[in-house]
Amino acid sequence: MLIVMKPSATARDIDAIVRLVEGIGLRAHPMPGATRTAIGITGNQGPIDGRRFENLPGVAEVIRVTKPYKLITLDLRPDKTVVRVGDATIGGSELAIIAGPCAIESREQAFVVAKVVQKSGVRFFRGCVWKPRTSPYTFQGLGAKAWEIMTAIRDEFGLKIVTEAVEESHVDLIEKYGDVIQIGARNMQNFSLLKRAGRSKLPVLLKRGMAATLEEWLLAAEYIMAEGNYNVILCERGVRTFAQHTRNTLDLASVPAIRRISHLPVIVDPSHGTGTAYMVTPLARSGVAVGADGLMIEVHNQPELALSDSAQALTISEYAQLIEEVRAIRNLIGSDAHGMSKPT
Amino acid sequence: MLIVMKPSATARDIDAIVRLVEGIGLRAHPMPGATRTAIGITGNQGPIDGRRFENLPGVAEVIRVTKPYKLITLDLRPDKTVVRVGDATIGGSELAIIAGPCAIESREQAFVVAKVVQKSGVRFFRGCVWKPRTSPYTFQGLGAKAWEIMTAIRDEFGLKIVTEAVEESHVDLIEKYGDVIQIGARNMQNFSLLKRAGRSKLPVLLKRGMAATLEEWLLAAEYIMAEGNYNVILCERGVRTFAQHTRNTLDLASVPAIRRISHLPVIVDPSHGTGTAYMVTPLARSGVAVGADGLMIEVHNQPELALSDSAQALTISEYAQLIEEVRAIRNLIGSDAHGMSKPT
Amino acid sequence: MLIVMKPSATARDIDAIVRLVEGIGLRAHPMPGATRTAIGITGNQGPIDGRRFENLPGVAEVIRVTKPYKLITLDLRPDKTVVRVGDATIGGSELAIIAGPCAIESREQAFVVAKVVQKSGVRFFRGCVWKPRTSPYTFQGLGAKAWEIMTAIRDEFGLKIVTEAVEESHVDLIEKYGDVIQIGARNMQNFSLLKRAGRSKLPVLLKRGMAATLEEWLLAAEYIMAEGNYNVILCERGVRTFAQHTRNTLDLASVPAIRRISHLPVIVDPSHGTGTAYMVTPLARSGVAVGADGLMIEVHNQPELALSDSAQALTISEYAQLIEEVRAIRNLIGSDAHGMSKPT
Amino acid sequence: MLIVMKPSATARDIDAIVRLVEGIGLRAHPMPGATRTAIGITGNQGPIDGRRFENLPGVAEVIRVTKPYKLITLDLRPDKTVVRVGDATIGGSELAIIAGPCAIESREQAFVVAKVVQKSGVRFFRGCVWKPRTSPYTFQGLGAKAWEIMTAIRDEFGLKIVTEAVEESHVDLIEKYGDVIQIGARNMQNFSLLKRAGRSKLPVLLKRGMAATLEEWLLAAEYIMAEGNYNVILCERGVRTFAQHTRNTLDLASVPAIRRISHLPVIVDPSHGTGTAYMVTPLARSGVAVGADGLMIEVHNQPELALSDSAQALTISEYAQLIEEVRAIRNLIGSDAHGMSKPT
Repeated sequence: MLIVMKPSATARDIDAIVRLVEGIGLRAHPMPGATRTAIGITGNQGPIDGRRFENLPGVAEVIRVTKPYKLITLDLRPDKTVVRVGDATIGGSELAIIAGPCAIESREQAFVVAKVVQKSGVRFFRGCVWKPRTSPYTFQGLGAKAWEIMTAIRDEFGLKIVTEAVEESHVDLIEKYGDVIQIGARNMQNFSLLKRAGRSKLPVLLKRGMAATLEEWLLAAEYIMAEGNYNVILCERGVRTFAQHTRNTLDLASVPAIRRISHLPVIVDPSHGTGTAYMVTPLARSGVAVGADGLMIEVHNQPELALSDSAQALTISEYAQLIEEVRAIRNLIGSDAHGMSKPT
Repeated sequence: MLIVMKPSATARDIDAIVRLVEGIGLRAHPMPGATRTAIGITGNQGPIDGRRFENLPGVAEVIRVTKPYKLITLDLRPDKTVVRVGDATIGGSELAIIAGPCAIESREQAFVVAKVVQKSGVRFFRGCVWKPRTSPYTFQGLGAKAWEIMTAIRDEFGLKIVTEAVEESHVDLIEKYGDVIQIGARNMQNFSLLKRAGRSKLPVLLKRGMAATLEEWLLAAEYIMAEGNYNVILCERGVRTFAQHTRNTLDLASVPAIRRISHLPVIVDPSHGTGTAYMVTPLARSGVAVGADGLMIEVHNQPELALSDSAQALTISEYAQLIEEVRAIRNLIGSDAHGMSKPT
Repeated sequence: MLIVMKPSATARDIDAIVRLVEGIGLRAHPMPGATRTAIGITGNQGPIDGRRFENLPGVAEVIRVTKPYKLITLDLRPDKTVVRVGDATIGGSELAIIAGPCAIESREQAFVVAKVVQKSGVRFFRGCVWKPRTSPYTFQGLGAKAWEIMTAIRDEFGLKIVTEAVEESHVDLIEKYGDVIQIGARNMQNFSLLKRAGRSKLPVLLKRGMAATLEEWLLAAEYIMAEGNYNVILCERGVRTFAQHTRNTLDLASVPAIRRISHLPVIVDPSHGTGTAYMVTPLARSGVAVGADGLMIEVHNQPELALSDSAQALTISEYAQLIEEVRAIRNLIGSDAHGMSKPT
Repeated sequence: MLIVMKPSATARDIDAIVRLVEGIGLRAHPMPGATRTAIGITGNQGPIDGRRFENLPGVAEVIRVTKPYKLITLDLRPDKTVVRVGDATIGGSELAIIAGPCAIESREQAFVVAKVVQKSGVRFFRGCVWKPRTSPYTFQGLGAKAWEIMTAIRDEFGLKIVTEAVEESHVDLIEKYGDVIQIGARNMQNFSLLKRAGRSKLPVLLKRGMAATLEEWLLAAEYIMAEGNYNVILCERGVRTFAQHTRNTLDLASVPAIRRISHLPVIVDPSHGTGTAYMVTPLARSGVAVGADGLMIEVHNQPELALSDSAQALTISEYAQLIEEVRAIRNLIGSDAHGMSKPT
């Protein structure tokens, strides 16, 4: 159920509703918007009788929700969510780029790449500390050692650190040393990990599962939000199909499809989405042209020596070229959620 | 087998090779390029001994082909094929757009749309004369009546006519009244239709099959070329996957993948590729940004009344907006096969 | 629309309805069943007013059809269709097996295999005369020469000949020399070929397209039936998925799914469905266990020398073992459409 | 690397190798077989020089492994693994059936179903204690309360308890109260959960992920085994494809494909594999006919009232019929890994 407040509703009105909702054992999720606040109600086992709220001060409307999701919807928040990470944003007017190597391999590698990322004006640095691998016998990330390197990079270059949590205990460490918690494709329906991320104060970057429908992906976001963390960024990274010319099939139509339903920002990962370096730049251009809020890009100082995902990492000069091209396209189409196609 | 001629080879040298090849019962496909001509040899049941050609006048190199295709490859023709249709081109410096309704429904409908297409500066008009339909009980196109309308449109608006051949006899009629033969997704492996199109003088627009791998699609083009028709345009129109938020999943990575192997031009169809009007413009932008040579777009004067594919047709004003946006992106990235990412 | 006649309706009553339907420009498809006849009406552009038929002599009920198909349904014919091919049947009490090499390669090869097939008590012999191939440069079948061999096999061994029509002219030849017209997966939506087969007196074996939904497959059958040929046999041969341990993914659930909707018999092709000889026998057992009416099996006297589909052909002794196993399972579960799970 | 011991090797020889391997910081996995023991070596970052082992007492052969998996292979253990759960087995001569409701909903429901399961002679009882759900707002299982019910069922009916661990802490509880740890499709690549299960003494039933290739699935099993738990049972439960007539597409070819590579037992889940009750029995027959070692079946006393997966649960009488049919097929084909097709 959603309770939409009048534009004139006061903070006290909203507070009263929240207390009432919690008083009957449910959870209230107030979402302030540009013109009015809406309050999502979760925790009910069946339908709630909305009439008890209708006549309370400040209430404009009570909406029964029949869709499987509530908090991700434009019904609840008609304006796009802008996720703030310190002085950087995702979902706002700037094109949000997250760049870095697949995994942190050594201090030297990470610093070379971080310097390149910083120089390009990009605000987010990625790099796996723990690396989920299909085989138990391949490189699984540096773990604790990688954190020292990451901390030094954050201090020295002022970059925001994005890294993947493979298990719940990792969330604790990211909260201590990082800025954005990434949930990987393989864990998109690891519900206990989603709930743990939902109890964090840090933003969560949620990758689409390999065979996830749009609804399953949005419901995974809903799991995080239902715990009270509304700073979720969706990341399209390709799905598994019969096609064999790419590692995954990048489904760019998911971007306008999400825009139509949800206020959450969505970025595109052409590195995992294609798995091949020569395709990354064209598909990055495509991702910005379709209206994504940002990109995740893998770049390595020596891709041929990378310990993981070597085939898809850009060289430093390819990366510089990509950044230039995608910014030109972004400047052209603007930051409106619907790209150029809606007049601003 | 490919015989690559020296830049200094004369027309007589080339001719001599062709006659020799035909003399031993095979077929020669000479492909003139910017700096040199290459000759593809087909018709052999097993490997040919290339040494007999190596010492002939003008021969630079004889290459044994182990890939399943020969004529579509960059090995044979390193420059991109520019398909010429009267004074218009596909694969050249202009962005080639093919626009029109799904099917020709009436003179009035077709004329209204054709006028809009012409006014937008677009050179190609599409519209099904025969409409392949999943059910035998739904509208199958106007057939003969539609040709009268098409002919009038060609005369009055100077547009090039693109329409689908559903069976071999249709190719005869398109040769008489149209400009480009379209082979639809369902017929991508209708080999007798491909061979018939291969014996035509008209260019062939070959849509990717619903579940076609890149190799199968390129081999379908090879079927056409092996008959002597080298003017093939590939069209990405989405593939079938588990995803349900679109009719098909548009696989834009096929564009750079084809570029890396083939000299054939490739366009993108975001109308069939998504099946939903609100997604067409963002995905059209994406298609141009990824480096496609053109677009196929469905537009209707009254989409809500269209007899087929109603949900995916753009209104006239949405169409005008799309044209403006995709041209802006094309101007930005240029017409180089690899988009902006290769210095020109 | 379906007109269900009373059990007591006479041939004259039925005839009167058929004439009336044809008199208003539509087509009537009478389907006699065990207890009553139903008449399918096709050819209408929109809904027909059924009331005009309701009070005619012999009419029990007039049913408006909202599903996209009419003639394939259990509503029209509640008993399973038994296709008769001379003294053999498909869909009846015997397990119908169609066996033979992928393609007819030589008189010797075909005769050796045909003798094995006959000796095993199997009634149908398969073998491509024309072979649709992904590449234009691979073996495409013997064509005319193969017909001589086929005719000799029919005469000498009394086997029914099943072969694929790749284009309309092939149907003419199959009508002359063969017994069952096969429509291959690649041509499942080649609508002009379907219509031509629909005008034949021979039964049609319709393979499922590589990415066909159940509805598309049944509508392809409907195309054939709408032309008046009601002897259609469906053949599940696997669909294209991401899985790479098989050539196709055999979707055995399509068998009970079809049973629930349609009266048409359905067989399973584990040879194409897996693409690997060692899997053919286990999946053949599975196909019979799920309740299929028959199997299509590739067998070759020297699989390692086969000119096509070499990897999936069984040796003669593997074939003999398979026949024994599948018959044992069939004897166990019986010929009821629903296998053992419905009491007979 | 695999070290294959001579049939004559003594326990002392084997022990010496194990100590040597551990002495150089690696892990040894001795797998006793019918005629000889093989020792898998894991933990190496790169290739190990096998020559140091070749001349040790009892060593027959040292095999370098280039495949991504080691412990799951027939190279390591040529005989099928028989998983023992008390006095019941999976992978042995009896057809192993795991039956029960989707989730434990109440003492009454669980007891009624458990009694039916016991009476049918089936040895394993399933039922989710925690239920992973796509939406955060649907029934998630009874949790702790369900354990009381499960414990009572184990005591009263002597059934072995199989339940899914959704997070690591659940493994602790299953170790206390259950018999087999189930890892669900969504968690197939939740590597920390796999490792935790690998450190348990209980057998692990590993479901195939929704879009998992065979290699990914086997590597997930390898994760468990690399921790020292060799009692892994694989469970085919269907994969995600474009097909819409079933919830998932049951890929029965995975059964012979696994047999060819691995010694692990494999069972089939036609309930999740189809998602529809009327298909469960035919596909269960198929699963046994293809050579699976067992089945997982959902049954409910009142399917129409089930709190989850209501559409796929069998009624009690459908269940009884299924058990009879699958046992008849199993008796026919025998328990040999390859079904009937290998002479016993």
